[in-house]
Amino acid sequence: MRLVETLAAPERIAEVFSDESVLRAMLDFEVALGRACARCGVIPKAAAKKIAAAAKGGRFDGAQMAALGFRAGTPVIPLVGMLADAGAGEHVHRGATSQDVMDTAVVLLLRRCLDIFAVDHARLRRALAKLSQKHSGTVMLSRTLLQPATPITFGFKAAGWYAAEERGWGRVTASARDGLVLQFGGASGTLASLGDRRGAVAEALAQELGLVCPDAAWHAHRDRLGALLGSVAVYVATLGKIALDVALLMQWEVGEAAEPRADGRGGSSAMPHKRNPAGCMLTIAAARRTPGLVANFLNGMIQEHERAVGGWQAEWSGVEGVMKACGVALESMVEVAEGLEVNAAKMRANVDACSAVLHERVPLTLDECVKAAETFRRRLLGKEGE
Amino acid sequence: MRLVETLAAPERIAEVFSDESVLRAMLDFEVALGRACARCGVIPKAAAKKIAAAAKGGRFDGAQMAALGFRAGTPVIPLVGMLADAGAGEHVHRGATSQDVMDTAVVLLLRRCLDIFAVDHARLRRALAKLSQKHSGTVMLSRTLLQPATPITFGFKAAGWYAAEERGWGRVTASARDGLVLQFGGASGTLASLGDRRGAVAEALAQELGLVCPDAAWHAHRDRLGALLGSVAVYVATLGKIALDVALLMQWEVGEAAEPRADGRGGSSAMPHKRNPAGCMLTIAAARRTPGLVANFLNGMIQEHERAVGGWQAEWSGVEGVMKACGVALESMVEVAEGLEVNAAKMRANVDACSAVLHERVPLTLDECVKAAETFRRRLLGKEGE
Amino acid sequence: MRLVETLAAPERIAEVFSDESVLRAMLDFEVALGRACARCGVIPKAAAKKIAAAAKGGRFDGAQMAALGFRAGTPVIPLVGMLADAGAGEHVHRGATSQDVMDTAVVLLLRRCLDIFAVDHARLRRALAKLSQKHSGTVMLSRTLLQPATPITFGFKAAGWYAAEERGWGRVTASARDGLVLQFGGASGTLASLGDRRGAVAEALAQELGLVCPDAAWHAHRDRLGALLGSVAVYVATLGKIALDVALLMQWEVGEAAEPRADGRGGSSAMPHKRNPAGCMLTIAAARRTPGLVANFLNGMIQEHERAVGGWQAEWSGVEGVMKACGVALESMVEVAEGLEVNAAKMRANVDACSAVLHERVPLTLDECVKAAETFRRRLLGKEGE
Amino acid sequence: MRLVETLAAPERIAEVFSDESVLRAMLDFEVALGRACARCGVIPKAAAKKIAAAAKGGRFDGAQMAALGFRAGTPVIPLVGMLADAGAGEHVHRGATSQDVMDTAVVLLLRRCLDIFAVDHARLRRALAKLSQKHSGTVMLSRTLLQPATPITFGFKAAGWYAAEERGWGRVTASARDGLVLQFGGASGTLASLGDRRGAVAEALAQELGLVCPDAAWHAHRDRLGALLGSVAVYVATLGKIALDVALLMQWEVGEAAEPRADGRGGSSAMPHKRNPAGCMLTIAAARRTPGLVANFLNGMIQEHERAVGGWQAEWSGVEGVMKACGVALESMVEVAEGLEVNAAKMRANVDACSAVLHERVPLTLDECVKAAETFRRRLLGKEGE
Repeated sequence: MRLVETLAAPERIAEVFSDESVLRAMLDFEVALGRACARCGVIPKAAAKKIAAAAKGGRFDGAQMAALGFRAGTPVIPLVGMLADAGAGEHVHRGATSQDVMDTAVVLLLRRCLDIFAVDHARLRRALAKLSQKHSGTVMLSRTLLQPATPITFGFKAAGWYAAEERGWGRVTASARDGLVLQFGGASGTLASLGDRRGAVAEALAQELGLVCPDAAWHAHRDRLGALLGSVAVYVATLGKIALDVALLMQWEVGEAAEPRADGRGGSSAMPHKRNPAGCMLTIAAARRTPGLVANFLNGMIQEHERAVGGWQAEWSGVEGVMKACGVALESMVEVAEGLEVNAAKMRANVDACSAVLHERVPLTLDECVKAAETFRRRLLGKEGE
Repeated sequence: MRLVETLAAPERIAEVFSDESVLRAMLDFEVALGRACARCGVIPKAAAKKIAAAAKGGRFDGAQMAALGFRAGTPVIPLVGMLADAGAGEHVHRGATSQDVMDTAVVLLLRRCLDIFAVDHARLRRALAKLSQKHSGTVMLSRTLLQPATPITFGFKAAGWYAAEERGWGRVTASARDGLVLQFGGASGTLASLGDRRGAVAEALAQELGLVCPDAAWHAHRDRLGALLGSVAVYVATLGKIALDVALLMQWEVGEAAEPRADGRGGSSAMPHKRNPAGCMLTIAAARRTPGLVANFLNGMIQEHERAVGGWQAEWSGVEGVMKACGVALESMVEVAEGLEVNAAKMRANVDACSAVLHERVPLTLDECVKAAETFRRRLLGKEGE
Repeated sequence: MRLVETLAAPERIAEVFSDESVLRAMLDFEVALGRACARCGVIPKAAAKKIAAAAKGGRFDGAQMAALGFRAGTPVIPLVGMLADAGAGEHVHRGATSQDVMDTAVVLLLRRCLDIFAVDHARLRRALAKLSQKHSGTVMLSRTLLQPATPITFGFKAAGWYAAEERGWGRVTASARDGLVLQFGGASGTLASLGDRRGAVAEALAQELGLVCPDAAWHAHRDRLGALLGSVAVYVATLGKIALDVALLMQWEVGEAAEPRADGRGGSSAMPHKRNPAGCMLTIAAARRTPGLVANFLNGMIQEHERAVGGWQAEWSGVEGVMKACGVALESMVEVAEGLEVNAAKMRANVDACSAVLHERVPLTLDECVKAAETFRRRLLGKEGE
Repeated sequence: MRLVETLAAPERIAEVFSDESVLRAMLDFEVALGRACARCGVIPKAAAKKIAAAAKGGRFDGAQMAALGFRAGTPVIPLVGMLADAGAGEHVHRGATSQDVMDTAVVLLLRRCLDIFAVDHARLRRALAKLSQKHSGTVMLSRTLLQPATPITFGFKAAGWYAAEERGWGRVTASARDGLVLQFGGASGTLASLGDRRGAVAEALAQELGLVCPDAAWHAHRDRLGALLGSVAVYVATLGKIALDVALLMQWEVGEAAEPRADGRGGSSAMPHKRNPAGCMLTIAAARRTPGLVANFLNGMIQEHERAVGGWQAEWSGVEGVMKACGVALESMVEVAEGLEVNAAKMRANVDACSAVLHERVPLTLDECVKAAETFRRRLLGKEGE
């Protein structure tokens, strides 16, 4: 983790994008490509073994690769050079182009991120369902434009969070399933240099890496990744909305909920005993960092011919940024939701305190409000609500 | 159409967002709500008829409604006032809140946009498939970083366009199917004022409008719309990529393709006989106007409690902008694709002219290049390729 | 005003971008160009008069011009055609290109917007200074991460608003002074068709329009406009920050300030007597609509050669959007600031209510807090603070 | 440099944002604060020396600080802890809050970036002026919407680049001068805990760090930084425009200019001898990564009260990203501009080849075109043009 990214990079996701991990993904591609070529009779079996051995035994210096790659316009040229120095032989990188390596590496890294997110999602989902069930009868004010409106229940509010999180995660997994596919097209997308084995090698390579083999390379058609980032961004925005709700409820003047206490969490260097909504803050910050990154990606999609001059190369740090944002938001909201302190008494007191004002407006009993909320709370929770 | 939006607002989509059309959608909601309430016994049948009559016979001035709505913070307050003036009676707007009307109106307008897009998509899809089939053997240079690379066929290039367009449209329809649902929640999302009939009224209302009835209102959870806009933005970016390719091929120095000639199209006030890639330009402009609108929407999604103070109200013009961008891009690319002039001879001449340079790099015959391209062209076209 | 833009388009700014106004600006350019050419002996004096007469007497239909302009890729071709139909003669549009007309028209419209903003800024500035002076001794809680922190004064808080607004406006006027210059370059920026009089005509044209004549045309160098939009966006964001502060203070649970009451302001269709922070909401919505428009403009700036294929044409609706956002934010905040109801007693009560908590953290007397706030309040107000 | 940022992080700017450098900036603040407090008699002189000694001799682990800071919501709490462990004593961090340290550190880092940029700017400016002067008579096609238009000179085109770069840099330095000021406000912006010495300490601290002391702290008013980022973004967009022009001229079919040859530059892993516009590509990529980061910052500016819950904390990685983008764009364009290979013969050949077409449109001699271009080339270059 880098100091300047203190609040932006959760450790597990930062690790996915570390030099070691990125390097590993690129080497995985080259090794799998060697094996795929060997399986299809394009290169000798011994050549594939040499590549694997070089990838395992070679010295690969991420920083140096980055420095050389900056000059070359791609880190793959120094990578292939280092593989050659490590004895990978003439058959390394056969049929591939730099972008095949970089894109497939990104896909492999995204798959790892998604696996991490899946665990957090499951915890968050459960925690939100629990909150909703536990507080099905906890009356509280609804608030529109930050002004009190007719009472609802906290269970209903949490059910809204639950259902939005669930929908959002569903879109993320659907777009990951469609979007995380092999990139392999060679110089101009047709794998021309592989002759008749081109289709077979592509499928074998996909198999080696456990990826879906798409109909063709997608060097300059970035819609699959764009759709995935868009889904993640909508999901992070939903987490941001939940975080903002909690931070607002946690205002001292409102006092209806609070993030869990934890050592070293949410402190202040000026006022040591202050208790800040640190998890919500991290989540809101993540949600504010995401939209522009998505806009950048969408603009980058308008690419020239078979490989872009700039649009593609602008992607990486944005993709990383969106994944980190999702990681920090998820990690933070899991902690917030699992440990949320709900002050049902204060919720009720706030309802009572403005009931005079509200009653003249909306002549409903609290029981009627609870019953109404309960109808939709159950629907929102679906099976979890039973 | 407004002059300042000359290049941004295709007539059919501009019409969808005209005052008359927006007003119609809002009145449709109120009339349908009256009928739904009557069907469920919440209001008398006669009351519903009075609402319908008022909606039909009343005088509704869009500009005045906008001016009053600007003051009120919502155009629905003056709308309901005008309905009352037209004799709609006391049962109008029963159980609803302003946002129910506005959101459902937007959903109805989006549905109309999608219907228009569907027709254009079908034409564009067919035109791209045709181009690909016709030019399965038309050799041309591929180009990476705007430099010549190994030859491909124009059929392969067009197949890449075809498949990306097809994927993009698939995402748009999927997210429209999930996203275009009724909004109906009343003051705080629980329809509390409708008593036990709340669920029934919501379902009847959805039925009246031909919309899906979601599990609950989504006043402050905007993920469905966000996902739809994201899908449209990815789609528009793909159209922008195709347009940029055509504009680059149409460069005088390249000369491999040209937009169709048409009266009043692509002119220049300084050089009357100049032929500009006007359709591509409109499409690229549309694709550059979209990303920031999506970013705005994603930021707006971080909303306060049961109704946002600003985030929601920021949406409308952005939603309109994205739909207009998609409309202009689609309309333009249909014209470009259906009439595209492909100069196969120039494509071949360009290949030959740099073959000396290329050959020393990549020792492939043109036949090998065509064969390689053909493998993937067929896969990309799928059933259309057979 | 259009219904779909109810909350986005303040009447005065909407008027600036109306067809009539846009048309007027384009005609102003053509008339001034005729006069400038005549003054420099490039065309006969009579020819200039004919142009002026045609501009005055002709029939110019904005909607038709937009429809034809959409096909042509520029509304200037139909404009010049309509001028010709009205008898403008052969010398109309002499030496100019479409972009000269459109860009200069935009500059003229922006100048009108800036004049409107200047009046609102002066009122807002005064109102904020007044609030700060009046409440120099009004103790209130500061709040960090939405949690109470050491006391400040409302005068200090308002002084922070004042100074940020003042800095922001200063940047807007500075970038307007640098940015709002004549566009006039002809087909490729060199006014080649005007012969030796090219420089003289440019200067005469600038004079006619009351604009600065820049060193050269800026068809594909959009930095001046970009810098202006950036300044406006920063200014709108500051207004959004002030609006958010007020909306948070206006929460029922906080109760320290309120927007002024006004007829037809901030209502609710579901709860008629509710009082919403409507002005703040409009301002926050404006501030959320702006950033993406700026991002779009910045992306559009990466333009091809002497005139872009899309990047430039993407600008207009974004420029209009930013101006409307600034207009609505300013207009709203003038009303909020001039009529802000400050509840000093509630501010004090909130301080007292959490003083036990705070005191253990920060052992300061209220007098010390006030004194500290006063130091910086005076500095922030500058001359206004004396 | 990190592998995933290969194309995004020029070495010198990456170094500025390295843990070591960020840590140094934070420690510089704490040491300077100690000295300032001592100078003003707030703490003993010996205490200031202890702080300086601890900052020099202590063990500060950036990664650990980031990990703890992620939990705390700020890296300053672990920083102060590590200083205490190193014997800094009780007077360390006197009067300050976390944000004072972080913001001032960012300001110090930005100042270092600006110093690096200034050197590159001077080189780029000179190189562009030289190109313009050398090619004052080099005729070439102008191109609008990527189609040939009336001839200009390459000297005129380069002068347009020169003047836009110069204007852009002027805005960057102006906004840096206004924006890079000390942050120091303590818990709620009033330095209340420093008593009567608060103003004096702030000024002494600014002096120690060589920064301007603003009228007051700006914890939640981010307009100065926003204006700086906006200026940098406009500047980077201009660099992107120049890069796109060069990449388009470098197309094999156009062949009018080329990036300089250099070892390890612009290669291809699939076609080893290919020559890519690598510097232009890096610059365009940088220009595409910037706009969304600015949009994120603008959205973050809408901050709550005296310290935001998310908006502020979202800033750091975006600020870093914009600086890196500017660094890579500048560094790349210096290399491109200083070594640009201009093919005057091909420029002329392209003019001749389409002169038949052009002549019928615009009956100008080449001499007239050169003369026209020269008028404005000289104006654009200003003193450099003499």
